[in-house]
Amino acid sequence: MFTQRLALLNPYVPGEQPTDRNYIKLNANENPYPPSPILAQKLAQFNLSALRLYPDPDSKKLCKAIATMVGNGITEDMIFVGNGSDEVLSFIFFSLFDSNVPLLFPEHTYSFYPVYAGYYDIPFKKISLNNDFTINIDSYLNEDSSGIIFANPNAPTGQFLNIEIVRSLLLRYPTDKAIVVDEAYVDFAPESVVSLIHDFPNLVVVRTFSKGYCFAGSRLGYAIAQPQVIEALLTTKNSFNHFPVDALTQELGLATCEDSAYYKKIHNTIKLTRDSFISELRKADYDVLPSDTNFVMVKKQGYLGKDLYEIIKKEGILVRHFEIQGISDYIRITIGLPEHMDQLLKIMKALK
Amino acid sequence: MFTQRLALLNPYVPGEQPTDRNYIKLNANENPYPPSPILAQKLAQFNLSALRLYPDPDSKKLCKAIATMVGNGITEDMIFVGNGSDEVLSFIFFSLFDSNVPLLFPEHTYSFYPVYAGYYDIPFKKISLNNDFTINIDSYLNEDSSGIIFANPNAPTGQFLNIEIVRSLLLRYPTDKAIVVDEAYVDFAPESVVSLIHDFPNLVVVRTFSKGYCFAGSRLGYAIAQPQVIEALLTTKNSFNHFPVDALTQELGLATCEDSAYYKKIHNTIKLTRDSFISELRKADYDVLPSDTNFVMVKKQGYLGKDLYEIIKKEGILVRHFEIQGISDYIRITIGLPEHMDQLLKIMKALK
Repeated sequence: MFTQRLALLNPYVPGEQPTDRNYIKLNANENPYPPSPILAQKLAQFNLSALRLYPDPDSKKLCKAIATMVGNGITEDMIFVGNGSDEVLSFIFFSLFDSNVPLLFPEHTYSFYPVYAGYYDIPFKKISLNNDFTINIDSYLNEDSSGIIFANPNAPTGQFLNIEIVRSLLLRYPTDKAIVVDEAYVDFAPESVVSLIHDFPNLVVVRTFSKGYCFAGSRLGYAIAQPQVIEALLTTKNSFNHFPVDALTQELGLATCEDSAYYKKIHNTIKLTRDSFISELRKADYDVLPSDTNFVMVKKQGYLGKDLYEIIKKEGILVRHFEIQGISDYIRITIGLPEHMDQLLKIMKALK
Repeated sequence: MFTQRLALLNPYVPGEQPTDRNYIKLNANENPYPPSPILAQKLAQFNLSALRLYPDPDSKKLCKAIATMVGNGITEDMIFVGNGSDEVLSFIFFSLFDSNVPLLFPEHTYSFYPVYAGYYDIPFKKISLNNDFTINIDSYLNEDSSGIIFANPNAPTGQFLNIEIVRSLLLRYPTDKAIVVDEAYVDFAPESVVSLIHDFPNLVVVRTFSKGYCFAGSRLGYAIAQPQVIEALLTTKNSFNHFPVDALTQELGLATCEDSAYYKKIHNTIKLTRDSFISELRKADYDVLPSDTNFVMVKKQGYLGKDLYEIIKKEGILVRHFEIQGISDYIRITIGLPEHMDQLLKIMKALK
């Protein structure tokens, strides 16, 4: 009764959610702060009887509010919203990456890029990172490719390419092939590449509300690009699904955009916590990769990544370990509340 | 820059949402009543700070509540939830229908079955309805097939197969090929086929909260089947997406299940409104198909379906017309509030 397609699948194993005790969760890059208090007001005012009606399929008001929040001359016809940036990425792979020439992405990057490539039967090639885990744009230009996608800052490495490097990549790449920059973590980085969109019709920037906007529970992401790319994404969405962003999420997304000052403050706090956490860890002889995200990659001589993870878990804190060649020495630690980072520091400093 | 895949698409045109005046919406099979007042309570109690965390990927509590609401010995491991029944259907097509032998479904049925079949490259064959628009199960048994899917009650025809007919189809069909019964409109029908699931491992029932549970704005649907089918759907979901049902929808879905008495009352009211509306229309010389749904298919001699639609729209009421051979004489009218149906009756009775 089950299909061959099903037999070929390799299901993702969701992150652990142990229930044996109350852990401090520093394992999923979630934001430690609550959403803006404005959301509670909007929720209280929400007309529940509207739930009987289908939501606006195009989320037009929300697109407009996001465009305003993004600034940089971006208009609502340059925004496409979806149920989390994962859904947006899926539509982008379908619409922009062809299946005869490989798509390029970094060796270590978001684990769903190869998944979507496989799903749409797009050949892909992983490009090695530099020894310091930064992305080397030259190595993307020497390959035949149907497009490029990378996260910036990259995950789980945490490293960032500044706008001038991304501009030089775009200038040297054919304008009829897409370059997708996944800015899931941009809120914790020095700058976005979004202003380049006006000059490059093949640039697509993807963002999410999940991390920077304390909204992982509601799933909301978006793409920013020139209008003809947005049209293509709408055509794709309207051709084989009609799962619009639900009415409550549209409403709360709007409220989020209205209070971007609140979130800017949170971003700054997280950056400060991160920088002080990194400097303390380095003092305690940990190797820490530079980070422009809300997480850090950390290793310590004499310890396997898996061991560090286990030691910390025994003390009631969950961090993430990847059993992946090249990064298996590291653990990835999400930046949480300052008091939780202090608690973790105490545990980590005790290791000699 | 755009893919060949994109060039082949045939985008769905969403139902009209004209803004030139305030229409009474009887065109999208939405429920005219608000959700249970319990939802407002739950929303007021909802801990918004939880939105910073990812939702439970498996919606376990919600699956349990749905199983309890469904009854008939259905347990939580027999429930799979998704973002609307459209997403659930997509996973079912992927997991259960193979691509070498045709999938069978009725000539007139939910327009997304051919869309999903096309998306997954599954050959399909449309099986003619009887002259009275009912489904003839014999014609499904005479074909080589990889599976069968139909809506019951069917849409947009509104007709219903009772449980004994569905049982006889299952008894005569190979048990290693899936039969999917889409019960999107079952809340307005005399009975469900869900109790047959215990006897038939190849039966999958799909349902939605959108119509019967006044919840179209939030997107929630589910499949009911034996646990090994649910496992397959989870494998599919976890292999190429991780868009769980969002946290607020899980919470409001739970509340909905807790007040099923409220919704039973609404279903009964809508059935009564429908039956009296049909009988009034027949008195006024309209041809009305029998309906076990929250909509009716109506035609009138001397009028094209398109004309009826236009006449009614001019009076401020939106109904639906399909420019599809075989049903283009008809309009589809959603059953709304009694006062709106009276208003519509007045318009329709004036036509001679």
